[in-house]
Amino acid sequence: MIIDCHGHYTTAPAAHTEWRRAQQAAFDAGRDAPAYPRIDDDEIRASIEGSQLRLMDERGVDLTIFSPRASAMGHHVGDEHVSARWAQVSNDLIARVVGLYPERFVGVCQLPQSPGVPIERSVGELRRCVEGLGFVGCNLNPDPSGGHWDAPPLTDSSWYPLYEAMVELDVPATVHVSAVTNPAFHATGSHYLNADTTAFMQFLQADLFREFPGLRFVVPHGGGAVPFHWGRFRGLADMLGRPPLEESVMGNVFFDTCVYHQPGIDLLLDVVGADNVLFGSEAVGAVRGIDPRTGHHFDDTRRYVDAHGLDAAELEKVYELNARRVYPRLDAALQRRAATAPTEGALA
Amino acid sequence: MIIDCHGHYTTAPAAHTEWRRAQQAAFDAGRDAPAYPRIDDDEIRASIEGSQLRLMDERGVDLTIFSPRASAMGHHVGDEHVSARWAQVSNDLIARVVGLYPERFVGVCQLPQSPGVPIERSVGELRRCVEGLGFVGCNLNPDPSGGHWDAPPLTDSSWYPLYEAMVELDVPATVHVSAVTNPAFHATGSHYLNADTTAFMQFLQADLFREFPGLRFVVPHGGGAVPFHWGRFRGLADMLGRPPLEESVMGNVFFDTCVYHQPGIDLLLDVVGADNVLFGSEAVGAVRGIDPRTGHHFDDTRRYVDAHGLDAAELEKVYELNARRVYPRLDAALQRRAATAPTEGALA
Repeated sequence: MIIDCHGHYTTAPAAHTEWRRAQQAAFDAGRDAPAYPRIDDDEIRASIEGSQLRLMDERGVDLTIFSPRASAMGHHVGDEHVSARWAQVSNDLIARVVGLYPERFVGVCQLPQSPGVPIERSVGELRRCVEGLGFVGCNLNPDPSGGHWDAPPLTDSSWYPLYEAMVELDVPATVHVSAVTNPAFHATGSHYLNADTTAFMQFLQADLFREFPGLRFVVPHGGGAVPFHWGRFRGLADMLGRPPLEESVMGNVFFDTCVYHQPGIDLLLDVVGADNVLFGSEAVGAVRGIDPRTGHHFDDTRRYVDAHGLDAAELEKVYELNARRVYPRLDAALQRRAATAPTEGALA
Repeated sequence: MIIDCHGHYTTAPAAHTEWRRAQQAAFDAGRDAPAYPRIDDDEIRASIEGSQLRLMDERGVDLTIFSPRASAMGHHVGDEHVSARWAQVSNDLIARVVGLYPERFVGVCQLPQSPGVPIERSVGELRRCVEGLGFVGCNLNPDPSGGHWDAPPLTDSSWYPLYEAMVELDVPATVHVSAVTNPAFHATGSHYLNADTTAFMQFLQADLFREFPGLRFVVPHGGGAVPFHWGRFRGLADMLGRPPLEESVMGNVFFDTCVYHQPGIDLLLDVVGADNVLFGSEAVGAVRGIDPRTGHHFDDTRRYVDAHGLDAAELEKVYELNARRVYPRLDAALQRRAATAPTEGALA
C-alpha cells in the first residue's frame, strides 16, 4: 500500500476560495462575513477527480493524507475569529472529500492560529476534527505572522497546551508555514524550506521530546536544508552539548519525500534512513511542471523513491508502515477496514 | 594551489572583542566609544598560528580568503556610526593579518551596514578596503536586522549603489548574515542556511544579472537548502516563467563547500557541478568538533572534496581556478607574485 503523507486541497472549488476573499473583505470593512456558500458534491468530485485523484491513480498512490491548502491558511489575515471560521470551513471541506472517497483520502486539519493568540484556542478545532470528523493529524504553523517570525520557538512552553492535546489524541503535526507577506521570502521557494530547517534546529536545541515522549512531528519538504547539512547538525548537537540527533530528535521527528530530483531523494534516504522518512509528494502543489530532463512531473516523487534501491522491507516502511506508525489513527482505521471488508487498500 | 574562500577571524585577540563590548556599552549609555586598543603583532600571530594557520597547514590549504567574524558583524547593534567604526577596526585587523602572512591570507571586508541605512553609505568602506587595503571582496548581509528580515530583497534597486561599486571595483560579495536576535532562529543552525536559500530564491525571481552582468555572489554553506532541492528550484523557475537557472543565475552565483559530511558534498558537486563551486571550510568556525564517525573534524571539507572523485581539471577549478575567476583581484595578485617571485603559492 502506498500512502502519500503530504497532499493539500489546492484545487478546492472556486466558491470556497471566493468566500475566503469575501470574508477578508468583510473583515477589512468591519462587516460580518457572508454565509458560507452551498457546494455540491459534484463540484467537489469535479475538483478532485481530474487532478488529485487522477495523479494518485497515475502514480499508484492508494491513499493521501489530505489537508487544506497550506499557502491559503493565511493565519496572518484578519483576527482570531476570521482564522477560526476559515479553519472550520476548510476542514469541513476536507471532511467532505474524505466522505466521498473514504478509501483514498484521510483528513489532516488546519488550525485556527492567529498571531499572538494563545495556541490553546486552537485545541477545540483539533478535537472537533479528530474526534468528530475522523482526522488523523494537524498542520502546525510555527510562524503565523506570515514571514515575520515573531512567535516563540516550537519548543517554548506556550505551545504545550496543543502538544498535550496531540499526545492525548495520539495525532502528529506536520510543521507547515503558509503564505508570506514579507517580500524577502518566496512562499514555496524559501519560506517553506526555511521553516523546516528552523523547526528542526529548535527541536535540536531543547528537551521537548523528553517532556513529551509521545509527541511526533513531520518536517516536510524533505526536512528543508537538514539532510543536506546533516554533518552540520550532528556537529552542532555535539558543540552545544546536546545528545546525538538519533537520541534527542529522531525518535519523534520524520521527514517526507517532497524533494524533486533523484540526487535529493538519494541523499535523504541514505543519510536519514528509511525509518524516519514518509513518502509524500505535495501534489497537486508547489511545483506542477514537467522536468524536461526526465519527461516526468517534478513532484512525481514515487519515481525517485522507487529508483533509489531500497530493499522491500525499507520500501514498505517509507510507503506505508512509517505513516501508520506516525499516524496511529490512520493505522487503526486501516485495521478496522481490513477486518470488515477485505478489499485491498480500503479505508474505514 | 588550494584556496579556501570562506574563513572568518573567529579567534581575534581578546582586546578587539572587549573593545566591541565597550563600544556597545558606550552607545547604550550615550557616551563616546573608548579609543581602540593597541594590539601587538605578536598577539595577532598568537591568535592565528595556533588555530587558523595550523589547520590550513594540516589540511594543505595554501591561502584563505579571510574576513571578520560573521556572527560578530552585528549590524543590528547600535547605529550607523557604531557599525561604521566596528567595520573599520575589524577590517583593519584583517589587513594586519594579511600583512603578517601575505602568502597565506587575502582580505574580504565587512560592510558597515545598519538597519534602514541606505547601502550607499557602505560604499566608502568597500572602496577603502579594496583600493587602500588590497581586499578582494566583501560580505553582504541581506538581513542587517539580525533575524527580523525587514530589508528589501537583494534584487531591489535600493541595493544597486553597492552593486555599481562592486562591478566597478570587480569584486564579488559573499551573502552572509550575522548573529540573530530573533529567538526563532539559531545563527549557524538555521539563520545562515535560511539566508542562503532566501538569497538564491531572490536571485531566481528577478533580472538582477541582466542589469549587472558583471556582478558575482558567493552563496555560502553550500547554497543553504538549494542544491538538495535543485529540482524544486528548476521547477519553480519553470512555473514562474523564469529562464533556466543556468541562464539567469548560475553565471553569477557560486556556492562554497561548507557542507560537513560526504553525502552533502557529493550531492553539491554532482548537482551544481564543478564550475560553480568554490572550495571553502568556514574554519575556524561554526562547527569545531570531530566527527566520531570519521575521526576527522566536521569542517575539514577538503577530505570530502578529495574523496568525491572529481577529475584533475575539475578539482583544480574547485580548489583554485573558480576562486581566481570570482575574485579577479586575487588572481591579479597571484599573477604579480608569480611574475616577481617564483615561490609556489606565494601572494603579492
